[in-house]
Amino acid sequence: MFNKVVIIGVGLLGGSFALAVRKAGLAKHIVGACRSQNTAEQALAMGVVDEAVFSAAEAVVDADLVILATPMLSLEAVLEEIAPCLPENCVLSDVGSVKTPLVKLVETRFPQLLPRFVFAHPIAGGERAGVAAARHDLFVDKHLIITESQLTDPAVFAAVKQLWQALGSQVKIMSAAEHDHVFAYTSHLPHMIAYSLVKNLHHQNNSEQLFALASAGFYDFTRIASSDPTMWRDICLTNRDEILASIEQFQEQLRCLTDAIDSSDKESLESIFTDAKKARDEGLIAKSEPNRE
Amino acid sequence: MFNKVVIIGVGLLGGSFALAVRKAGLAKHIVGACRSQNTAEQALAMGVVDEAVFSAAEAVVDADLVILATPMLSLEAVLEEIAPCLPENCVLSDVGSVKTPLVKLVETRFPQLLPRFVFAHPIAGGERAGVAAARHDLFVDKHLIITESQLTDPAVFAAVKQLWQALGSQVKIMSAAEHDHVFAYTSHLPHMIAYSLVKNLHHQNNSEQLFALASAGFYDFTRIASSDPTMWRDICLTNRDEILASIEQFQEQLRCLTDAIDSSDKESLESIFTDAKKARDEGLIAKSEPNRE
Repeated sequence: MFNKVVIIGVGLLGGSFALAVRKAGLAKHIVGACRSQNTAEQALAMGVVDEAVFSAAEAVVDADLVILATPMLSLEAVLEEIAPCLPENCVLSDVGSVKTPLVKLVETRFPQLLPRFVFAHPIAGGERAGVAAARHDLFVDKHLIITESQLTDPAVFAAVKQLWQALGSQVKIMSAAEHDHVFAYTSHLPHMIAYSLVKNLHHQNNSEQLFALASAGFYDFTRIASSDPTMWRDICLTNRDEILASIEQFQEQLRCLTDAIDSSDKESLESIFTDAKKARDEGLIAKSEPNRE
Repeated sequence: MFNKVVIIGVGLLGGSFALAVRKAGLAKHIVGACRSQNTAEQALAMGVVDEAVFSAAEAVVDADLVILATPMLSLEAVLEEIAPCLPENCVLSDVGSVKTPLVKLVETRFPQLLPRFVFAHPIAGGERAGVAAARHDLFVDKHLIITESQLTDPAVFAAVKQLWQALGSQVKIMSAAEHDHVFAYTSHLPHMIAYSLVKNLHHQNNSEQLFALASAGFYDFTRIASSDPTMWRDICLTNRDEILASIEQFQEQLRCLTDAIDSSDKESLESIFTDAKKARDEGLIAKSEPNRE
């Protein structure tokens, strides 16, 4: 049980964390640090937070748990602002989609925070951004990655791990580099593709007709292209090399398929589609769909 | 009301058509022409057809409506087999994903069938193939494209149009060439991308880990890569030029995005993501989601 939980950035993830922690009875008082009046009012009206403030530095006074939930590139400024005001034993964590640059930032600029900082990433979300889309069950049966760190106090590490497990998440521990590699291929690359596909349709002369006639499958496929642009801009800038490598490898696969279509190669086409279907169907069975929303 | 409806190929589309026609009370007797014993037994057990036979030629005797629902490349052989046995006034239609080659095939090889042939394509389906996945409501609120044709008897054309409207579909009329262009961009291209993306994951050394940690978003995104390989092989072979052009244009969009990531161009990234999100969100509102499953 935490006495004062502070969420910096009350959006989909921050807001859902607040609702989940409250539902689990793990927080006495929840404070949201918001940028806009609108978010503050919504968060209060929805019962996401008990108190909404506009200064992160002010918010963290007397906190025993602070969750950073703003876009990746804002974290340096946020940490600069709150570092002088953080109570000595306050636990710090985040929900960011890229881990290596944040770990490096804290190691180089805020090393005093390392013993009580647990770097985390819930593999959950959705294309609806903002506190209005927050749900208390967003993290149930979803993976939660914690970055392994020699410098984090083991008791703090264990406390954050137990906290996420109490919210229903399946916690996995991995290195920051491994995390950034895995999610480049499984999350960042699909987002880049979805955005490019929608843009491709949008650039056609008959784009209105195309969007009107597109099937359910198309709108499912491009759901992730309705995700928050600022968040994805920051992910691209912070996980640049892994994302570029994943795009290059995807393009190689698409080129193989294009060659098979170009040469009307019946056997290759059938084997490409059969192999892909098999891989996906097996992947889905293997994970027993714990991550499906 | 049709006395005898014959479905050639009792899979997801053929089976769903049979269920829908029966539910609408538009068929006295439904016969399925199946290739496998397994499909025949399932179709009978599910009440999809009243009778299952293994010869298409035999099936069409005394039919007043025949629906071709086998993969694109099998249609020539099917038409060769049934053409001599078709009753004089029997209406013919299909559910194929590519229209130009089928129209050409009938024009050149079976011109006597043109007056009673209505070329159709329901924009509905799913990644689960086969009669087991058939649903009576698969076509409700979905688009159904009919290819305009000067040579079809206007009464036959009107009858098939009304039939699909009675099943809940929104009927749109367009040329075969326009159809094949539109669905290359909105359906065929997304499938090519999804298959390539799954294959890209499958080719990584840590592919098991990648499939296990992939999010709900990833499995939604790649749902269409679990579609029937034979059907998609045939779509690639029959709509080759449009698909190749759509892939080339998509790759150009992906290259623009890659350049922006490579040069860490914050403004371009934000504008690409914002434009794509806006285009998709507006497309979804404009069509008021009639095609969503």
